[in-house]
Amino acid sequence: MSDGEEKPDGFSFAGIAAGLKDSNKKDLALILAPENSICSGLFTQSIVRASCVDICEQRIKKSSGLIRAILINSGQANACTGDYGIQHTLFATKEVSQLLGINEEEVLMCSTGVIGIPIQIKNLIDNLPNLVKELKTNSLQNAAEAILTTDLVDKKITIETFIEGRKVKISGFAKGSGMIYPNMATMLAFLTCDVGVDKEEWDKMISIAVKKSFNAISVDGETSTNDAFIGINSGKKIDKKFLSKIQSGIDIVCQSLAKNIARDGEGANCLLEVLVEGAKSNSDAIKIAKSICNSSLVKTAINGCDPNWGRIISAAGNSGIDFKLDFLDLYIGDFQILKKGKLNKYDSKKVANYMQTRMNGKYLVEDIVSISLHLNSGSEKGTAWGCDLSKKYVEINSEYTT
Amino acid sequence: MSDGEEKPDGFSFAGIAAGLKDSNKKDLALILAPENSICSGLFTQSIVRASCVDICEQRIKKSSGLIRAILINSGQANACTGDYGIQHTLFATKEVSQLLGINEEEVLMCSTGVIGIPIQIKNLIDNLPNLVKELKTNSLQNAAEAILTTDLVDKKITIETFIEGRKVKISGFAKGSGMIYPNMATMLAFLTCDVGVDKEEWDKMISIAVKKSFNAISVDGETSTNDAFIGINSGKKIDKKFLSKIQSGIDIVCQSLAKNIARDGEGANCLLEVLVEGAKSNSDAIKIAKSICNSSLVKTAINGCDPNWGRIISAAGNSGIDFKLDFLDLYIGDFQILKKGKLNKYDSKKVANYMQTRMNGKYLVEDIVSISLHLNSGSEKGTAWGCDLSKKYVEINSEYTT
Repeated sequence: MSDGEEKPDGFSFAGIAAGLKDSNKKDLALILAPENSICSGLFTQSIVRASCVDICEQRIKKSSGLIRAILINSGQANACTGDYGIQHTLFATKEVSQLLGINEEEVLMCSTGVIGIPIQIKNLIDNLPNLVKELKTNSLQNAAEAILTTDLVDKKITIETFIEGRKVKISGFAKGSGMIYPNMATMLAFLTCDVGVDKEEWDKMISIAVKKSFNAISVDGETSTNDAFIGINSGKKIDKKFLSKIQSGIDIVCQSLAKNIARDGEGANCLLEVLVEGAKSNSDAIKIAKSICNSSLVKTAINGCDPNWGRIISAAGNSGIDFKLDFLDLYIGDFQILKKGKLNKYDSKKVANYMQTRMNGKYLVEDIVSISLHLNSGSEKGTAWGCDLSKKYVEINSEYTT
Repeated sequence: MSDGEEKPDGFSFAGIAAGLKDSNKKDLALILAPENSICSGLFTQSIVRASCVDICEQRIKKSSGLIRAILINSGQANACTGDYGIQHTLFATKEVSQLLGINEEEVLMCSTGVIGIPIQIKNLIDNLPNLVKELKTNSLQNAAEAILTTDLVDKKITIETFIEGRKVKISGFAKGSGMIYPNMATMLAFLTCDVGVDKEEWDKMISIAVKKSFNAISVDGETSTNDAFIGINSGKKIDKKFLSKIQSGIDIVCQSLAKNIARDGEGANCLLEVLVEGAKSNSDAIKIAKSICNSSLVKTAINGCDPNWGRIISAAGNSGIDFKLDFLDLYIGDFQILKKGKLNKYDSKKVANYMQTRMNGKYLVEDIVSISLHLNSGSEKGTAWGCDLSKKYVEINSEYTT
């Protein structure tokens, strides 16, 4: 399968079935970046990390971001696998480097899937020549499929714009919260951009984008052993005054992927979008919004189409960020629930009906439940995303699998 | 109804139905402490607090803990009720003080129930004379019932010991995580002790006990607008060398109530008890244990009797506390799962069977799923408690109530 859209110049992608998953679905992906590409990565903050994550960090640092290839496997997360973890990562990246004729230090590896079971290394190695052969500029779709675990849909986006007559493209793909035993949600996301940006600047831009996207979503408040976001740029540089335009593009790609992940959370029926305005800082706003998205009580209320504003305000109150109850304006959809902290007259049946409609709306178009909270204490704002908490979530995650 | 057990000397209790709840169940409680009693209180850290909580804090501080009475109502939480909040609290505590012939500053008030709806103040005030008339030394049971919302069982405990021939008693009662629309879990707990302890010492002792009990439980990670723990002591003082014995007693009472609350979490089938040993500090150990108790993925795995150790380790890794994966010993029940970070041979069917048995075991006797994690990095330990996450939890909290 190939994509219709034009991808960032110089990058090629591959995704194949290498027999790592029992399902025989695609499970091995590769991204090849042009020479002199600049790479930044942000990785799980968990103490328990897969060793492939450590190697990613080390190699990006050591090479000052001069990374050429990223190998990604699904099926086994290669975490908590003792000495196998690092051995298999080193072995696989070395093989890839030899096939591509590059330095092994220029190859990264990300894994997602079952924890505690060694990677199916023989199948992986045997299929590397085939994987490399499949590298094409228009195979991003295959790569996006190959990194999925039990995600219900693939998650990818390409955007383009013209800057001084030059066509500029940014592509991203990601996987979200699939579950395989014994496992947890893992987030992997990759971004490519065909405008050259210096390492230091790129680090900043990636970090800004992640703060407003992947770090602003929550499916179930869990951080995985393998979470990773890697962004690579390559190509002719651009006048500094246009960098803000590139930043906007990266933000759009990251937010789109992040929303896709939240919406595809286990058992979810809607995307929950929480906007907090009137905060003292953007990060305060995001913290409050995230606290609301993270609340089991808010998430179950949404699942039940119950405009339970007390839970929303209480979750905001638990964010650790100071605000005045008497200043709050709260909206669910277009319905104002609180006005300067006091209950506004609203038709709770209409609000419930709004939620009900959204719970059954068209995927990522009309299935967004919006909550907005104005603190009236500053001029900054921020958004976070989540999903409802359903019986299906419990079912998926409590399935008897041993 | 009166209790069989002997309660702390000098304290009396009452609990009646005052028409605050639609169910006509008991909904108004009173604790009367002897003159010169010493009171300490710990309250919700949420930014959104009921004004009765503010008044509790102010009065305890202003009087240096010289508190005589605590009025507690269930039915309405008196939070997010605008000016009514403080007016009703002041009115009710003033009335109580006049009926008891004490200073209004010596009366505290705690509320739990529906948020955003004013307290049924007329019913409350009309019933105060009756409440005061009901005060008896052996009516703790009535008080314990009157503070419940949708708790399935009442939660109370009295312990006694002899110190140099003197009989010493400590009693406590609490309510946990009931739900009424629009509402969230509220925890209220009260402790009385008939040994006199100075304010400064008592503050410390209460704070130590709470850290190891109420602050170490999680039903769904939510903090309420009204959470409160209040401990009062009164009576002859005791040689300082015996204070550690009193501390142990307070710890036992608080932990018993805390475990009761965790076990009675919505939809729960078991008590989850997580012991973390070999930590650098007690608070590190509790943080890790709590992170495990808080994990939706661990809680659903337990609900499914799935010995999903990857989720346990991952939750530990998200606690923010540093540890070495290679040092970890992990047990579920008596089954060793990890040995110095490596998978131990165990019969996963037997582990699943252990969990299954516990999920159907006798209430708070044989229904405890134990997880223990040894970090092998220090000599401190700590325990936290939670419960499984069931479809019933989602059902209870997503019920369509508007």
